[in-house]
Amino acid sequence: MEFLRGAAVVGQSGGPTAAINATLAGVIDGYFREKNGSGAVTGLYGMKNGIEGLLKERLCNLGEIFAAPDGTIDEEKKQLLINTPAAALGSCRNKLPKPADDPAFYENLISIFKKYDIRYFFYIGGNDSMDTVAKLSEYLKTSDYKMRAIGIPKTIDNDLTGTDHTPGYGSAAKFIATTMQEIVRDCAVYTTKAVTIVEIMGRDAGWLTAAAGLPKLGPDYVYLPEVPFDMDKFYADIEVAFTRHPNIVIAVSEGVRFADGRYVGEGTQTGVADAFGHKYLSGTGKALELAVKEKFGCKVRSIELNLPQRCAAHLASQTDLDESVATGRNGIEAAVSGLTGSMVSMVRSEGDYAITYEVSEISKIANAVRSVPRDYINEAGNNVNEKCLAYIRPLIQGEVAPKYVDGLPVHFVIE
Amino acid sequence: MEFLRGAAVVGQSGGPTAAINATLAGVIDGYFREKNGSGAVTGLYGMKNGIEGLLKERLCNLGEIFAAPDGTIDEEKKQLLINTPAAALGSCRNKLPKPADDPAFYENLISIFKKYDIRYFFYIGGNDSMDTVAKLSEYLKTSDYKMRAIGIPKTIDNDLTGTDHTPGYGSAAKFIATTMQEIVRDCAVYTTKAVTIVEIMGRDAGWLTAAAGLPKLGPDYVYLPEVPFDMDKFYADIEVAFTRHPNIVIAVSEGVRFADGRYVGEGTQTGVADAFGHKYLSGTGKALELAVKEKFGCKVRSIELNLPQRCAAHLASQTDLDESVATGRNGIEAAVSGLTGSMVSMVRSEGDYAITYEVSEISKIANAVRSVPRDYINEAGNNVNEKCLAYIRPLIQGEVAPKYVDGLPVHFVIE
Repeated sequence: MEFLRGAAVVGQSGGPTAAINATLAGVIDGYFREKNGSGAVTGLYGMKNGIEGLLKERLCNLGEIFAAPDGTIDEEKKQLLINTPAAALGSCRNKLPKPADDPAFYENLISIFKKYDIRYFFYIGGNDSMDTVAKLSEYLKTSDYKMRAIGIPKTIDNDLTGTDHTPGYGSAAKFIATTMQEIVRDCAVYTTKAVTIVEIMGRDAGWLTAAAGLPKLGPDYVYLPEVPFDMDKFYADIEVAFTRHPNIVIAVSEGVRFADGRYVGEGTQTGVADAFGHKYLSGTGKALELAVKEKFGCKVRSIELNLPQRCAAHLASQTDLDESVATGRNGIEAAVSGLTGSMVSMVRSEGDYAITYEVSEISKIANAVRSVPRDYINEAGNNVNEKCLAYIRPLIQGEVAPKYVDGLPVHFVIE
Repeated sequence: MEFLRGAAVVGQSGGPTAAINATLAGVIDGYFREKNGSGAVTGLYGMKNGIEGLLKERLCNLGEIFAAPDGTIDEEKKQLLINTPAAALGSCRNKLPKPADDPAFYENLISIFKKYDIRYFFYIGGNDSMDTVAKLSEYLKTSDYKMRAIGIPKTIDNDLTGTDHTPGYGSAAKFIATTMQEIVRDCAVYTTKAVTIVEIMGRDAGWLTAAAGLPKLGPDYVYLPEVPFDMDKFYADIEVAFTRHPNIVIAVSEGVRFADGRYVGEGTQTGVADAFGHKYLSGTGKALELAVKEKFGCKVRSIELNLPQRCAAHLASQTDLDESVATGRNGIEAAVSGLTGSMVSMVRSEGDYAITYEVSEISKIANAVRSVPRDYINEAGNNVNEKCLAYIRPLIQGEVAPKYVDGLPVHFVIE
C-alpha cells in the first residue's frame, strides 16, 4: 500500500458520551506515535463541531495543544481528556448529501483538505457519522485527491453492526446499573405500596435498558423495545410483584411500543424530528406512571435518567475508556496502513473476555441497527436473562479515578 | 449524672440519603465502644421502618448482626453499611401525637421499651424526626421510666437549625455539582441555540440548588426559592446569556415561587394528552421549559435530577460520610454521658474547616427551617455568590471508594 504523508483531521459527531473524548485521546495518541514513528501523519487538526465546523474551517491544532515539550503527547492533558465527558471538539448532526446528488459539496470539502494538506480523515460517531464516512469514502474513489477516511464507532446505544459493542455503551451501562441499584435501595425504605418507573434511553434498541438488569438487587422488571409492550401483561406483572414486596421498581426503555407500532409515550412527543427524521421521544415513563396510578391507586412516580446516562464521566467504565482509547489509536494505525472506507470494530474472544481490534467495511454498517436478540430476553418478555447479562457484564468492569480538585472532577476544555 | 445501664434502639426516619447509613454505622460503632467500655449500653436493636416498626416490635438485633467474633464491630460490614445509600433499617413518615393529647400512645411505647430493657433511644432524621424525639423526651419527663432520647440529624435539604449543616447534604451537594458540571459539558457540544433547565430538589430551602453553582464551568443561572421568581427577569436573563453562548444551562429549585406565593410548577399542564388520554401536571422544570419554548422558539429541555440526588452513594462526599459516622457515635456518647432531649449538632470552626460535635436542645430545633441567607445570593437574585460557595465547598471534599464487585458497588442489606 502506498505510503501517504500528510496531516490528519478528526471530528466528533452525534450525541455526546462519557467515552467519546477517550476515543479522541486515542486518535491524538496515535497521531503522536505516527508522527514520531512512521512519519506518515504530519499534523492533527480537530474539527470544531464536526463536519459543520470543517466546512467553515473552524479547526484547532490538536498536534500543538497536546504536545509535550519533547514532541510526544502531554500525558496529563491526555488523561484529563479521557475523563472528560461529552465532545471536547463539539459535535453536530449534519447529514451529508449523496456524492452523486451534490458533487460540488465534496469538491469544496476536498479544497479545504488540500489547503491544510489533510490526507487522513477520522470521524468518531454513531450510525449517522458512519454514513458521513461512507459517503466521503465513496466520493474519494472518484477523486484524484489521495486521502483515507476512517470511522471510529461511539454510541451509548450499542446499536451499531459490525462490532461486538460500541465505545460509550459500557460507561452508560455502568451508570444505569449503578443508579438502578441505588434507586431500588431508596425505594425499598417505606412499607406503603409504591411503583417507581425508571425511563431509560434507547429509541430503537434496548441495550441501555438491559443494563438495568445487571444488579442482583435490581428492578422487578425490565421492558425493552424489542418486545411489543402489552398493558394487560404489564398490569399483571405489577400484581405479581406486589405479592412479593410493596415497593416495585420498573425499568423501561423510552422506545417501547405497542403491538400496533405506536410508542407507549406517543402523544407526549414534541412532534419535532431531527435532521435524520428521527422523532424525539419523551414521556414513556410519565405515560406509564399515570396509567398505573389510575389502575392501582397507589403511589406512583416516574424518573427519567436523562442526560447523565451519557455524560456521567465520574462513573465511567474503565474497560470502556480503555477500549475507547484503543479504537482511536487503531483508527490511526488502520489509515496509515492503507485502509479507507472502514470502521474500527471490536471483536470479542471466546472464553475469557478480551477484545481484538479489526476493521469493517463502513458502507455495510451505516444505517443498520443492531437490536437486543430475542434470546437475550426472558420468555415472558419482561426481563433480560443471564445470556444478556453475561454479554454486558465485562463492559462495565473497572472504576475510573478522575482527578478531583475542590471536590469536583477536572474536565479538559478545548477552547 | 446517673449511670444508666440498658439496651439501645435506633431508627431511621424521613427521606433516605446517601449518608444516613453512615450515621447508623456511627451509632453501631458507638454502641460497641460503650458495650466494651463503660458497659452502659448492653445491646442495640434496630427499628424496622422507624417508629412504625417499633410499635409493631419489628426489631432487628444490630448488636448481633454487626458483631465480629471478638465482640467488637465487624469492620467490613460497617464499611459496607457506610457506603450503602437509603435507609438500611427502612424508614417511615409517622408523626407522633402530642403527649398531652394521647398519653396511652406513649404508655404503649414505654411498655415496649421495658420489654426489651431499652434505655436509650436514637432517631436519625430531619425535622419530623426531631419532632418525634422532642415529643418522646417531653413525655419521658413525666414518666418513672428512666430513659434517654437523642436525635441525630440527617437531611439532604440542609434546612435544620441548630447545626452548621446536616449530614447527607454534602453528598447530595457533591452529586448535584458534579452532575451539573457534566450536563454543562454535554450541552456545550452543539452550536444551535438551546436552553436546558435542571430542576433540583428543595421545596422550601435552596441549599441543594445552591450547590449547582459550585463548578467553575457551571450553569448560567441558579434560581433559589429564597428569591421570588419573576418571569420577565428570567426571560431577560436568558437573553443576556444568549449573547455569550448558544447553550444555556439553568439550575432551578423545585420550590421557586412567584411574588404572590404561587409555585412556578403549580397547576401547569402541557395540554398534550398521552396514549391513555391523560393530561399531565408538570413540575417546575417542565413549566419553565414550555414557557421558554414559547418565548424563544428554540430547543428547550428540562431535566429533573430526581432520586439520585439523595441516593447516589457512589459519588458521596467522604467528608459527609465521616461526619455522619461521627454524629452517630457522638449521639451514643451524649446519651451515655447523661443527655436526653437533645440533637447532636455540628459547629464549624473559624478559619480552616473543622467540625466539633455538640448538642442542641431538640425542642428548639424541631419544625424550624433554615433558609439560604439573602447575602449568599447575588444582588440580581439569579445566582449564588462566593460567600455561599465558600460555605458549601468544604462539605463536598473527598471521594469515596466503595467496594465494587462485578463493576457495581456492593450494598449492605439488613434483611
